[in-house]
This record gives sequence, C-alpha cells and structure tokens, in this order.
Amino acid sequence: MLSRLKQPFISACLQSSFVPKSQVNCLTIVVSNLRHWNPIFSSCFSDYRSLSTSSCSKTRELLGRFSSVLHTPPFFRQSTSTGHPVRFPTNIGDSPDPKKRKMTSITTVQKGSLNKLDYRIYYRNETGPISPFHDIPLRAATGTNIFNMVVEVPRWTNAKMEIATKEPLNPIKQDIKKGQLRYVANCFPHHGYIWNYGALPQTWENPNYTDESTNCKGDNDPIDVCEIGGRIQPRGAVVQVKILGCFALIDEGETDWKLLAVDVNDPMADKLNDINDIEKLMPGYLRATVEWFRIYKIPDGKPENQFAFNGEPKNAAFALNIIEETHKFWQELSQKRVNNDGELALERTTDANSPFNMSVADAEGIVNGNPEAGSPGPVDPFVDKWHYITVNPNGS
Amino acid sequence: MLSRLKQPFISACLQSSFVPKSQVNCLTIVVSNLRHWNPIFSSCFSDYRSLSTSSCSKTRELLGRFSSVLHTPPFFRQSTSTGHPVRFPTNIGDSPDPKKRKMTSITTVQKGSLNKLDYRIYYRNETGPISPFHDIPLRAATGTNIFNMVVEVPRWTNAKMEIATKEPLNPIKQDIKKGQLRYVANCFPHHGYIWNYGALPQTWENPNYTDESTNCKGDNDPIDVCEIGGRIQPRGAVVQVKILGCFALIDEGETDWKLLAVDVNDPMADKLNDINDIEKLMPGYLRATVEWFRIYKIPDGKPENQFAFNGEPKNAAFALNIIEETHKFWQELSQKRVNNDGELALERTTDANSPFNMSVADAEGIVNGNPEAGSPGPVDPFVDKWHYITVNPNGS
Repeated sequence: MLSRLKQPFISACLQSSFVPKSQVNCLTIVVSNLRHWNPIFSSCFSDYRSLSTSSCSKTRELLGRFSSVLHTPPFFRQSTSTGHPVRFPTNIGDSPDPKKRKMTSITTVQKGSLNKLDYRIYYRNETGPISPFHDIPLRAATGTNIFNMVVEVPRWTNAKMEIATKEPLNPIKQDIKKGQLRYVANCFPHHGYIWNYGALPQTWENPNYTDESTNCKGDNDPIDVCEIGGRIQPRGAVVQVKILGCFALIDEGETDWKLLAVDVNDPMADKLNDINDIEKLMPGYLRATVEWFRIYKIPDGKPENQFAFNGEPKNAAFALNIIEETHKFWQELSQKRVNNDGELALERTTDANSPFNMSVADAEGIVNGNPEAGSPGPVDPFVDKWHYITVNPNGS
Repeated sequence: MLSRLKQPFISACLQSSFVPKSQVNCLTIVVSNLRHWNPIFSSCFSDYRSLSTSSCSKTRELLGRFSSVLHTPPFFRQSTSTGHPVRFPTNIGDSPDPKKRKMTSITTVQKGSLNKLDYRIYYRNETGPISPFHDIPLRAATGTNIFNMVVEVPRWTNAKMEIATKEPLNPIKQDIKKGQLRYVANCFPHHGYIWNYGALPQTWENPNYTDESTNCKGDNDPIDVCEIGGRIQPRGAVVQVKILGCFALIDEGETDWKLLAVDVNDPMADKLNDINDIEKLMPGYLRATVEWFRIYKIPDGKPENQFAFNGEPKNAAFALNIIEETHKFWQELSQKRVNNDGELALERTTDANSPFNMSVADAEGIVNGNPEAGSPGPVDPFVDKWHYITVNPNGS
C-alpha cells in the first residue's frame, strides 16, 4: 500500500513547497514509519509522537518541522498572509474504492486581513473558484458514511468564523455584530471553542420545516459539526470525518443540530464509532459540550441556550438520518424546488445543470473583487478574558 | 494625577516605538478615558472594553492596535524575534510613596530561538544585565505587600519555561527532560497552564529546611506564583502582584508552595484581597487549580501529585509569612551564610557588597556568549492534544 501512495504524497509535499527535493528520501523513511499512514496529506503526521524512538535524527527533525506547519494555526496564517493558495489535498471523489477515486485538490485563498471586516477565505479546485457550501460534496466518497467537513473555527480559538451563506461563493468570514467582529467569550474553564468547529457542505437546516423531534424549525444554515480529534485543524481545512452522534441545540427557538464527529485520520478514530465511545475514551467531553453551548452567549447578554432531549446526545444512526434529511432539504433548495426566502447565495460552479450555475469567469471576478491579503489586524483583548458563569449543569 | 503621570507614560510609549509622535494627542484622549489608569505601562489598557462607547474612532483604533501588542504573546514574540530588548517599564523602587519612587526600567533580551534548546530570555536594567532571581527586588516598593512577579509561562501555553536557577544571570529557558524540550500536557478540560505562571524574585525554598506545616523540605527554587488576572501576561514580563493565598503542593516529596496572586492593575484587583474572594468572583478556579497540579504530570507517566492541608488553600496572611520565610532563606543564601549545596547560580550585578557580585563587563560577556535570536523552531504537536485523566477530585 505504501509504495502506491508514496508518489502522490511526496508529490503533494513538493507542490506545497514544504520540503526541498533533496529531503524526499528522508521523508520516505518518515512515511514508512507511520502506523496511521493515509493518503490525506494534512493528517499524515498525526502519529508523530510514536516516532520519538526513531533512530534517524534527520527524519525526526524533518518530521518535527513538518508537523508544526501542519498542526498549528501558524501554518495557516503563514501561508495565507501572502494571499497564496493553501492546499488541502482532499480525497474527494465519487467512488467508495480509493483506487478508483478521482483525487480533487481543494485549495483556499485568503483575501483581506485577519481580524478585519474584509477577511475572507475563498475555495478553489483545479478549474477555478468553488463554493464550500454548494460545490464540495457532502460525502468524501459516494456510498460511504465518511463526510467532508469544512473547518470554520480551530479548537481553542475565539473568532466566530463561518461560511458566509449570503455572499456569492460563500467564503469563510468572521461574523459581525453591530459592526464589530464577533468573538466567542471564554467561559471558565473553557478556552475558546473546545472542538474544531465547522459545517457539512450540501446540507441545509430548513427554516420552513418543523422537526418532529425538537418541534422547532431549522436555522437556515448548513449543519454544524464539532470535530473532537486530537489535532488542531487549520481554519478553512476540508477534513474527512465520521459521525458519532449529535445534540439538538435550541438556539433562540430554532433547531441547530450539533453533530459530533472525528477526523477519520485521528489516531483514536478506530476506537470511536458511536456516541457512547466518546464518554468511554474522553470522559467529560460530552458534558462539557452541553455546558459550552448552554452558556456561551451569556457573557454577550443573551439568555442560556436550551437543548432538546433534556441535553442527552443522540447516537450515530440518528445523526446520519438528520444529515440525510438536511441534505435533501439542500437538494430541494439548490434545484429551485423550494423558495429561497432566507436569501442564501446559491451560486455554484461545478454543476452545469444547476439553476444557480455560475461561470468560472464570473466566479474569478467575485474573488478578485476582494482586497488582497494583508497583515492581521489587532486581536481584541476580550479573547484573553475568562468569564465565570454559574448555571445548573443539568439545566433544570 | 493624570497630568503628572501622562508625561512618563507617553514617553514610555515613544521609547517603545509603538506609537508615532503624531498620534500622541490621540493617545492622550485614550489615557484620559481610562478608569483604571496606572503608571504601569504594560497594564494601562486593561479596561479597553469599557471604551467601546468612545466617540473618537481614531482613539479606539489606536487603542485596539495598542492593546493587541500589549495583551497577546505575539507582542512578545514579535519584539524579541529580532533580538531587540523588550521593555517592561516597571515601577521598581524603594519608597512606598509613588512620588518618591525611583523608576527602574527592566528590559528583556532574547537569545537563541523559541522552541529550541538555545532559547534564553536575559534581563537588563539601564546599566547592564541583571539576574531576575537575585537582582529584581522581591517587593515593588519597600513596606508594601505588592510584589514583583517574573512571568515564566503565559496562560494557555504549554512550554515549561522557567528561571534557569543554575545558569549565571538566571535567564528564562525552557526546561529539558531527556534532551527534549518540555511541554506540559493539556489535561481535559484545561488548555496549557491555566494562570500566568511565574516566580517571586529573591525567594528560595530551602531544601535543608523541613517546613513544620507540610513536614517536607523545599525544592531549591524561587517560590512559584499563579497570577489569576484577566490578561495574558507576556513571557518574561515583570508584573506587580498582590497575594491572595497559597496552596502547599507536595511534589515528589518536596514542598512546592503555589502562591495565588493578582496583577494589581487588573480591573478585578480591587475586589480580590484574600483567598475567599477568588471563589466568590471566580467560582471553580481554586478547585481547577488543585486538579491541575494533581494531574498535570500523569500524561508524562508520573504519579498524581499530593497537597498538604487536604488540598485546601491557605489565606493571604499565611502566604505572606511563607514569602517572608523564603525571602529570609534567600538572604542567607545570597550572603553566603548557608551552603549552596543545590549548586544555584548566585551571581548578581546590582549589589556591590554581595559575595556573588559580578561586574557589568562579565555579565555582558555571558549574555553575548549566547547565539543571536533566531526564528522559532517547530511547535511539538503534543501541545495540540487533550489528555483525559480520571481521578477522584478530592484526591482521596
């Protein structure tokens, strides 16, 4: 398996300019050491720690250098502050058999400046700009339950970044409240978001449909995901996840499903298959998740959020049904079979038959209409503070 | 009061090159808006959020820019990656009356590279290099209970940085275990250190003295401090703190006092005066502190730590006595009245009568013997992971 995969992997490394050609031999050693080797470039070093006994110091040095750019937000900041595309080689295709799967390389391009109102992350494939909401397939491979997740907020950060559902091509941008960039408060003992947070493409929580289990309508957004793996996913990454369960948050009277998922390339992924595995392997994480969503808007003067099902999570099978349902709603919307009362931007570039098909030239025009990438603005000192909120952990 | 303080403040700003002269008028507006105005430069913007209604957009923009460099680690990283000194204008003097207090400006200089073995932060005053262990006075002003704290580890970071007690001039460096840089594990739900962590200068936990309350000997280090204020203190900063209480950690059989303190310029400082105020204003923080110290070495394969007094904290009066005691031990050591069996580096440059007096020229030689500041090395991906440790929260 290794030899088959080595070539595209090394090729991806070189394209991304992380590794000089002279070091490829050494990297091959690295690759051959990886227990969790996987064609997904961005996760291939998740098992870095197991190599601490490697006898090849050059390998370890390289690996360390590599891991840092892959694992930490500076990777993202560094690469995008120049406005150059960041590559997330993602195994997106249409066959459940990886051998037959067409590899699609998704890249992101930053426009504007981090911590400023004009910050945007646009997505591209080999042809041109794409929408992460409408063009990235829901499933990483047809017929599997491995899904593409678009990472909006890396764990332990505060900037409320999200797919801009109402802007053409749906770039990631920071949410704005009353003209100010929005950051979530740190509610003790939590620091920022406590998972890698994002959304599943090609899903829509229908605001015209009353869910029979929650008795609430959808919130007009793609469905949210909390990725609980051990790696910090860079903002904008497209990650392949498996679904473990979900919570039904009721946010200001609207159903806002929160899927629980894990990066399929996480070292723990094999042991995480359903909702109960989370409490076994990560005791306290589910309770912390409920607590986090209940209280996170209180420092902003909002009331405590509520959960359906008494704050109990639903299992993977239930969550998969919810995904199917929201995917069907999205299909109806994107095929113009229901009204777009919520004024979503539905343009896409990869489906010529779509009623919202946009030409590559028009899409390039939209991306180019944004200011070039610039230096980050100042960080709001609000993100340094801890807020101490006391509520009944059972919410009753 | 403002007019008296404005001049040195503006002067400090200009010296630090953060603000062009043309913007001083605007900054004056900022200063006049600050409720918590204080001559300590590094904390003067702690009340930034209260200015959100300011009508002067230029003021807010400036303040935002300023706050970011003051409040976040990038301030420190940015400034030191060039090897230029970072200024921590600190009100260090010998009079309880601020009007008569001699202002001493302490700066730091980085040598080597962050995340590498050669990383060091050295300290200087106007004359030359100083030791943060032996030359920075314990008290910010004689006769007060306001102490100087040397910040070793900013909140929410993992690198175990510490005053190198056995290296001449005692720079801050990252602890090394088995040849590898040491990072503390993230034990769920905590992220890195949960306070700004550091030490009080001119104190020594005497390894030859058995404390009658803990029945254990000291750990041969200066006394540790957990600063619980709302700001992230930059690594290397010298911060004025008041003492609220302490815990008696028993770490591998040695007494290792953990003082609880707050930056006197924190917006909450007026309301924090003794140990019970912490639980009132920051519910859960004391319990989290005990839990953190109990379990933080478990991911490294060490046993759970123990606390004296059944994990209960002692109050401010008790903690002040401990500080006095450890200060006396330091005095005996630094005056050569006891043996230095623990091989501490006792050189200092600001006391000509000290048996360990070192000339400025020799001190400069030691600092200059280090490699120049370089780019940070890769971050160990270990710091991205959460470890799930289950112990009885009461430790019994």
